[in-house]
Amino acid sequence: MINYPNRKVVTTLPKQSTNEQKSPNIKKSRLGVNFEDMINDSNAYYLRKDLAVIHKKPTPIQITKVDYPKRSSAKITEAFYKVPSTTDYNGIYKGKYIDFEAKSCNGKSFTFNNLYHHQIEHLKLVEKHGGISFLLIRYNDFEEVYIVPTKMLYEKYQESFNGGRKSLAYSFVKENAYLVPTGYAPMVDYLQIIDNLYFKENKDV
Amino acid sequence: MINYPNRKVVTTLPKQSTNEQKSPNIKKSRLGVNFEDMINDSNAYYLRKDLAVIHKKPTPIQITKVDYPKRSSAKITEAFYKVPSTTDYNGIYKGKYIDFEAKSCNGKSFTFNNLYHHQIEHLKLVEKHGGISFLLIRYNDFEEVYIVPTKMLYEKYQESFNGGRKSLAYSFVKENAYLVPTGYAPMVDYLQIIDNLYFKENKDV
Repeated sequence: MINYPNRKVVTTLPKQSTNEQKSPNIKKSRLGVNFEDMINDSNAYYLRKDLAVIHKKPTPIQITKVDYPKRSSAKITEAFYKVPSTTDYNGIYKGKYIDFEAKSCNGKSFTFNNLYHHQIEHLKLVEKHGGISFLLIRYNDFEEVYIVPTKMLYEKYQESFNGGRKSLAYSFVKENAYLVPTGYAPMVDYLQIIDNLYFKENKDV
Repeated sequence: MINYPNRKVVTTLPKQSTNEQKSPNIKKSRLGVNFEDMINDSNAYYLRKDLAVIHKKPTPIQITKVDYPKRSSAKITEAFYKVPSTTDYNGIYKGKYIDFEAKSCNGKSFTFNNLYHHQIEHLKLVEKHGGISFLLIRYNDFEEVYIVPTKMLYEKYQESFNGGRKSLAYSFVKENAYLVPTGYAPMVDYLQIIDNLYFKENKDV
């Protein structure tokens, strides 16, 4: 059995910083972490059932100071969050390389500002090299999760530079993207949709 | 062009800790980082040439304290290195999922203690799911890099529990594993060996 420590990575505020938690950005990022837990649980489920080997990448940190209180142990005393170079999740499913970014948002649209340009380019590159890549997005207010395939994401993203809207509207996603079944085991069964899209005879992506 | 910040991750001692750098363990880890730089350079080369999309995963860190000197920026003030849950590198090459751990060692043998059990199990699992996985190992004293395919690694690892040696001897690796061409661009051309092993008609792995 493989260890699965990633679930415990603290990527948001520690609980004592109650003042900060009131700002909208912080609230949003906390919702993001909940979605992250749902995905990590799903990946742990897939691993237990021997269906797929997909892990969250660690949060990239720039370490600037390290103390050595004991010879054997290092304590990091100064570090900063870095911009991720790729996406959050990758791995293998049915022999195929899987790569996706996961985001959650409040309200009726997800603004492209929440993705880095190079992350979208990375998703595109993965697809070009024969992998399966997508955005896994949760519209919190609707409690719905969707797979937005890279091709669809990229088209909308490019339109945003040519007068199109700067966001993925819930209404568009609901109509055009793929609703992911959610429940308890796994909590976010995104591989069921990947099966339909990429491993059935009538592929429609 | 995708950002490639991983090269600058500080995974070893900052330079000011000169006392510590004299211990053998630290020396070894510094050599490890040099090898890491070589691999990161190679991956950046593969990416530039549009041959493969392979990245180093960030070093996993357990964050325990965060300060917010400004509203917009977080400063981590206490954190610890964590045990990695999987391997250092993964990505996609010619449509195949690639996953490997990279290690360097001094002397004539690489002891299995330098790998976590679950990392070896992870490599095995990747292979089972149809990916390509291996150990990329540098014997520093010989300035040679080898690919040890997971099957070979696993056999030797299992033998180590049944009276076999607890390490990968340089002599064994030289005779049975695959020497990787090293140079300037790319510095460690491991995909050339992967080509020979997995993408030629006479596959011998």
